[in-house]
Amino acid sequence: MKAVVYQGPFTVSVAEVPDPTIEAPTDAIVRITTTNICGSDLHMYEGRTTVEKGKILGHENMGTVEEVGGAVNRVRVGDRVSVPFNVACGTCRNCVEGWTGFCLRTNPTEGMDGAAYGYAGMGPYDGGQAEFLRVPYADFQLLELPAGTEHENDFTMLSDIFPTGWHGTELAGMRSGDRVVVFGAGPVGLLAAHSAMIRGASQVFVVDNKPDRLALAEKIGATPVDFGRADPVEQILDATGGRGADSGVEAVGYQAHDASGEEHPELVLDNLVDSVRTTGGIGVVGVYVPQDPGAADDLAKEGRIGWRYGQFFTKGQRMGTGQCPVMRYNRRLRDLIVAGRATPSFLVSHELPLEAAPDGYEHFDKRDDGWTKVLLHPGS
Amino acid sequence: MKAVVYQGPFTVSVAEVPDPTIEAPTDAIVRITTTNICGSDLHMYEGRTTVEKGKILGHENMGTVEEVGGAVNRVRVGDRVSVPFNVACGTCRNCVEGWTGFCLRTNPTEGMDGAAYGYAGMGPYDGGQAEFLRVPYADFQLLELPAGTEHENDFTMLSDIFPTGWHGTELAGMRSGDRVVVFGAGPVGLLAAHSAMIRGASQVFVVDNKPDRLALAEKIGATPVDFGRADPVEQILDATGGRGADSGVEAVGYQAHDASGEEHPELVLDNLVDSVRTTGGIGVVGVYVPQDPGAADDLAKEGRIGWRYGQFFTKGQRMGTGQCPVMRYNRRLRDLIVAGRATPSFLVSHELPLEAAPDGYEHFDKRDDGWTKVLLHPGS
Amino acid sequence: MKAVVYQGPFTVSVAEVPDPTIEAPTDAIVRITTTNICGSDLHMYEGRTTVEKGKILGHENMGTVEEVGGAVNRVRVGDRVSVPFNVACGTCRNCVEGWTGFCLRTNPTEGMDGAAYGYAGMGPYDGGQAEFLRVPYADFQLLELPAGTEHENDFTMLSDIFPTGWHGTELAGMRSGDRVVVFGAGPVGLLAAHSAMIRGASQVFVVDNKPDRLALAEKIGATPVDFGRADPVEQILDATGGRGADSGVEAVGYQAHDASGEEHPELVLDNLVDSVRTTGGIGVVGVYVPQDPGAADDLAKEGRIGWRYGQFFTKGQRMGTGQCPVMRYNRRLRDLIVAGRATPSFLVSHELPLEAAPDGYEHFDKRDDGWTKVLLHPGS
Amino acid sequence: MKAVVYQGPFTVSVAEVPDPTIEAPTDAIVRITTTNICGSDLHMYEGRTTVEKGKILGHENMGTVEEVGGAVNRVRVGDRVSVPFNVACGTCRNCVEGWTGFCLRTNPTEGMDGAAYGYAGMGPYDGGQAEFLRVPYADFQLLELPAGTEHENDFTMLSDIFPTGWHGTELAGMRSGDRVVVFGAGPVGLLAAHSAMIRGASQVFVVDNKPDRLALAEKIGATPVDFGRADPVEQILDATGGRGADSGVEAVGYQAHDASGEEHPELVLDNLVDSVRTTGGIGVVGVYVPQDPGAADDLAKEGRIGWRYGQFFTKGQRMGTGQCPVMRYNRRLRDLIVAGRATPSFLVSHELPLEAAPDGYEHFDKRDDGWTKVLLHPGS
Repeated sequence: MKAVVYQGPFTVSVAEVPDPTIEAPTDAIVRITTTNICGSDLHMYEGRTTVEKGKILGHENMGTVEEVGGAVNRVRVGDRVSVPFNVACGTCRNCVEGWTGFCLRTNPTEGMDGAAYGYAGMGPYDGGQAEFLRVPYADFQLLELPAGTEHENDFTMLSDIFPTGWHGTELAGMRSGDRVVVFGAGPVGLLAAHSAMIRGASQVFVVDNKPDRLALAEKIGATPVDFGRADPVEQILDATGGRGADSGVEAVGYQAHDASGEEHPELVLDNLVDSVRTTGGIGVVGVYVPQDPGAADDLAKEGRIGWRYGQFFTKGQRMGTGQCPVMRYNRRLRDLIVAGRATPSFLVSHELPLEAAPDGYEHFDKRDDGWTKVLLHPGS
Repeated sequence: MKAVVYQGPFTVSVAEVPDPTIEAPTDAIVRITTTNICGSDLHMYEGRTTVEKGKILGHENMGTVEEVGGAVNRVRVGDRVSVPFNVACGTCRNCVEGWTGFCLRTNPTEGMDGAAYGYAGMGPYDGGQAEFLRVPYADFQLLELPAGTEHENDFTMLSDIFPTGWHGTELAGMRSGDRVVVFGAGPVGLLAAHSAMIRGASQVFVVDNKPDRLALAEKIGATPVDFGRADPVEQILDATGGRGADSGVEAVGYQAHDASGEEHPELVLDNLVDSVRTTGGIGVVGVYVPQDPGAADDLAKEGRIGWRYGQFFTKGQRMGTGQCPVMRYNRRLRDLIVAGRATPSFLVSHELPLEAAPDGYEHFDKRDDGWTKVLLHPGS
Repeated sequence: MKAVVYQGPFTVSVAEVPDPTIEAPTDAIVRITTTNICGSDLHMYEGRTTVEKGKILGHENMGTVEEVGGAVNRVRVGDRVSVPFNVACGTCRNCVEGWTGFCLRTNPTEGMDGAAYGYAGMGPYDGGQAEFLRVPYADFQLLELPAGTEHENDFTMLSDIFPTGWHGTELAGMRSGDRVVVFGAGPVGLLAAHSAMIRGASQVFVVDNKPDRLALAEKIGATPVDFGRADPVEQILDATGGRGADSGVEAVGYQAHDASGEEHPELVLDNLVDSVRTTGGIGVVGVYVPQDPGAADDLAKEGRIGWRYGQFFTKGQRMGTGQCPVMRYNRRLRDLIVAGRATPSFLVSHELPLEAAPDGYEHFDKRDDGWTKVLLHPGS
Repeated sequence: MKAVVYQGPFTVSVAEVPDPTIEAPTDAIVRITTTNICGSDLHMYEGRTTVEKGKILGHENMGTVEEVGGAVNRVRVGDRVSVPFNVACGTCRNCVEGWTGFCLRTNPTEGMDGAAYGYAGMGPYDGGQAEFLRVPYADFQLLELPAGTEHENDFTMLSDIFPTGWHGTELAGMRSGDRVVVFGAGPVGLLAAHSAMIRGASQVFVVDNKPDRLALAEKIGATPVDFGRADPVEQILDATGGRGADSGVEAVGYQAHDASGEEHPELVLDNLVDSVRTTGGIGVVGVYVPQDPGAADDLAKEGRIGWRYGQFFTKGQRMGTGQCPVMRYNRRLRDLIVAGRATPSFLVSHELPLEAAPDGYEHFDKRDDGWTKVLLHPGS
């Protein structure tokens, strides 16, 4: 089959590789209809991870079930399904408690709980930017979708970024009626804002400095805050009578930049502490890493971030973090899409055939204007 | 009346001061029967705060109602009561939602939510290390206790440290059956451990290096972990099959020391991240401050703590922080004491008359062996 | 002043009565700008309660602060405010835990927790269908609103029925993405549906048989279910693939009627059990009473309802009940109104001067077509 | 192998039957070391169910893994395990959300969610009162225990009644510090009381009229309330200053009897409403059935119970019901047993070889004095 393969820094190619096969009786093979390029794929693309050459990329996958193993009896051949990005066994303590993002069994890497498709350090699983994908524990993992092709570009957000944005609001302890601030108007931040609106926020601020992204935020009913124009904390305090937002979401991660483009890993956390009110909650879905050898300062190299923790304590704030356990939310989010109450496809800027993946990576990596979210349709 | 008055670094005296009077119709005057010296009083005692000379100290207070204002009709003269350390109005948004530690009205200090008796920066309220104390919003604030003198040394823990220890377990999201690790075997840490036992922890580790405190931890059913003997993280991982504790409590604060006595403000947070399992919760009741001019390194001077945040995110942990809203817990904790199921008085090492307060401060400040918790009984 | 006074079954009059005065230092006097007739006022109007002649009716009140007692210092003269229908002290155990609908101190009636304005059995408090209203514990109770007259018809729903509808969804344990069924399209049921939509329900069914009310349900995005046309349980099961709704709200109460008009107090509870899925939650805000001497069958006379409890258990369902603690929600709902995200005024069918109250009661009591919700504006 | 087989009303025999075999790749065969007779087995024993002759009984099972299917890779041959009584797939919506007691796939019975071993109407699964048991979805279902034989009589309570008692306190929304009332001092009621004590209740009342059971309640630290001596509601109100308990657990079910021995299915629910305070929660784990053809009155025949629902609403109480999802609790309860903090074996009155099962059933069914809980040890 054809697949998008990592070839080295800034190079992916569409190569002919062997078709995946059923390796365990609990496996299924999914024929991919849509698979997205994720912002986190770019870490690998840019050569800043240890991912091996030849790896098939892609963890945002959906399609139809092509074949099932002998122990699969809930999912059936022909079913249209979404594949959660976390590879999870469904039987360990974390999975049983709903923490599929921290499965204790699927990632053989020492000291790491949780696995993913096509990702550095997240286990030996091929990605789905390909014609077919092998899915372990298929009865547990696959989310059934209505047959046909309707809502394809909405449903494709169910494998990762829509649940991840939603998780941000959940980790923040957001309640209906809250004023919510979201830092970062990338795909995850925008879907966190969309989630907050759906859950009944009274107002959602979205902080970024890219005009096209801020325009999308406005389009979904949020209030854009351009940090290039003025201190975002002051803008939010002004808009809330000096009180601050009730809860906040971090959707930027450790490579945060200030308006001048300089990297400041503590910047967004500081801003959240200052723009969220006392006793408020903060949900962090932007990625921070245990080691960052390429970081500018020595602390950050060890994964240490010197943010304003004393102020965080003094304000009695709370913080939840970590990768999203997709299965905790994807059924409900699917139902919201079917009902027409969620439309995460508003993000989609480009739909390409699989063969055009190298082009898609290049433009998306450069953050070329208007390249918000790229979908690949193998076989199209 | 007689009162313990701050006179400058390392000096308190028992002075004659004017009796407090009813200043507002919602006030009450409480005749103090027991008032404790708190570890946090020592920050002022050591001259590391901006507290003014002449301030009456003491925020851990109990006694009997001596007089009430014209708008007080729930509490009655003669009632035996515990006084929560947070001065709270009961009518602002935070109080109505149960966050009395962050009252929006009682602290006139710019940018600070929440007030306290006899404390630097926490509003103009005299402390209760005295014969009498004025209590604002008395109907809202005062917790009624059974008449008499029974359980005096247990009930005196209801004004601050028993609820604060309990709050640590609550902020950690602790559930019955959890293995819990508590860093710090001072009074708050020991009562966090006591709380965790009462709430059905399967095992509670208490980390410290003082033998007398570790002995107290063992006495209440916890497992002492001496960080002077070996790396506490390794001890906890070993005792939990490599998995780590399910939840953790920070009861040390920004002046954390390593085994050699050197200050490392990030040390306990790092240890918690490493000794609590993925998806686990951490409750922080040890105090961190927005500025710490006396700190060794520049980051800490600004209240920045460079702890292992990347690892915290990678493990998907949660953290709650801040001063305890005493009223959220004190009724239930009182009931547990009355029923004989909680006995926080196990901490008490010394009971002194008010006049002996200077002695008490001196020994307690030096952490003299066996000086775990000092109670003052005015009028005794 | 002028006030709406109960004169006996089916008779209210607008009478001249003494102005209310400050009776306690914690009181305020509110000049009423809007006060609504509530469905529950009709129980008194129809002579089915023990309310005494001469009682001023009205518990859905808003206006501006005219005068305050000596202990009131948060609320100020001139403030525009909403008055929660529950009279609550703010200092008892239930109030401190946020259960202001069950205040332990404000209702002197034996065995009853919780009080209300102008209501039979709910304490000695005059109602607000008048030019002025005395409000006890004003600093605790009054919700501040933006000055002016904007949103008047939305804000007037904050005193009772918007929070009560919202409480129904909360008691049901409703989550975003749920399909929710609401029985009863009266004002409370419609606002429960509005609440469920705001909170992110994927679909909301509203069951009734009145065309004008079902049309309003449809207007706010809900799916009308006419129980006069077919069994509502079957309609809901059909619409949910046989599975049932995820959660349900009871907004009818003990005087439920079937399609033929016959009273069946167990009917709506039975329908909820059958139309909500296994493990689903049910929130009951329709009123059930401890005794109902006028009931048809002997069980109901004693407040016993012989509903399908065995099936409820077998399906593992949950149920929450009782009067709404308005203060738990009214701040957030106000914020949603100000932000334009909630518009409960869609209900309003009639706005009358106070003098027209007798007319309003008569039409509303007859459920005359189109008389959905009647507002009185004293002084207009 | 030998197995306890239902032969008709009041007759079970130990018969030779075929060994179970692996039927699906996700199955395991467990060699039973301990299997208990449950109170709910007596419904079948007494001939009041539709259970077919020849059915192997027993849903409280533990043992060691004898054989596993080809898709089982978490559990290993030789592992000591507890078998949750609910047969659950681990992959349907209810299982994924932790509601394994309401699995959507394992029970083919029309309209029933949830399955069990050896039980009428709960699917085609043989019971474990036998030498061997087939366990579907073994990787998901089996709880691993420390190897050896220690704590055998504690661990055997993990398959059903310890989690079920715990679930009662959870459904009641019990919090540490609560006064809790448990109706019924059978095995489930006593373990609900044990659970409440472990979770930090300040006081636990246990209501029954059997002296041996009340003595056991007292032994574990609870307060026995003999309803044969006086009205239990009055006893509880007296002991709580007229306020009532904070939460309550129903552990009796639809065959409740009054002191004279007459059946009153509404009696215990009425008592709970009256002995639990306003806003309190009630957890129901005593079984109520959708139809009860053998009931005395016509309502009860249809599963209708005419309890004091109007009073329940007026007090604003909450209620949770249904069969326990064992897997939600069994890991934590195992940890509490290993730590010595839970000792549910205090219940055990008799340990018999499998061959003595008919004797055990007979005595237990007659509630012969001292026959609290009967364990069978096959192969002993």
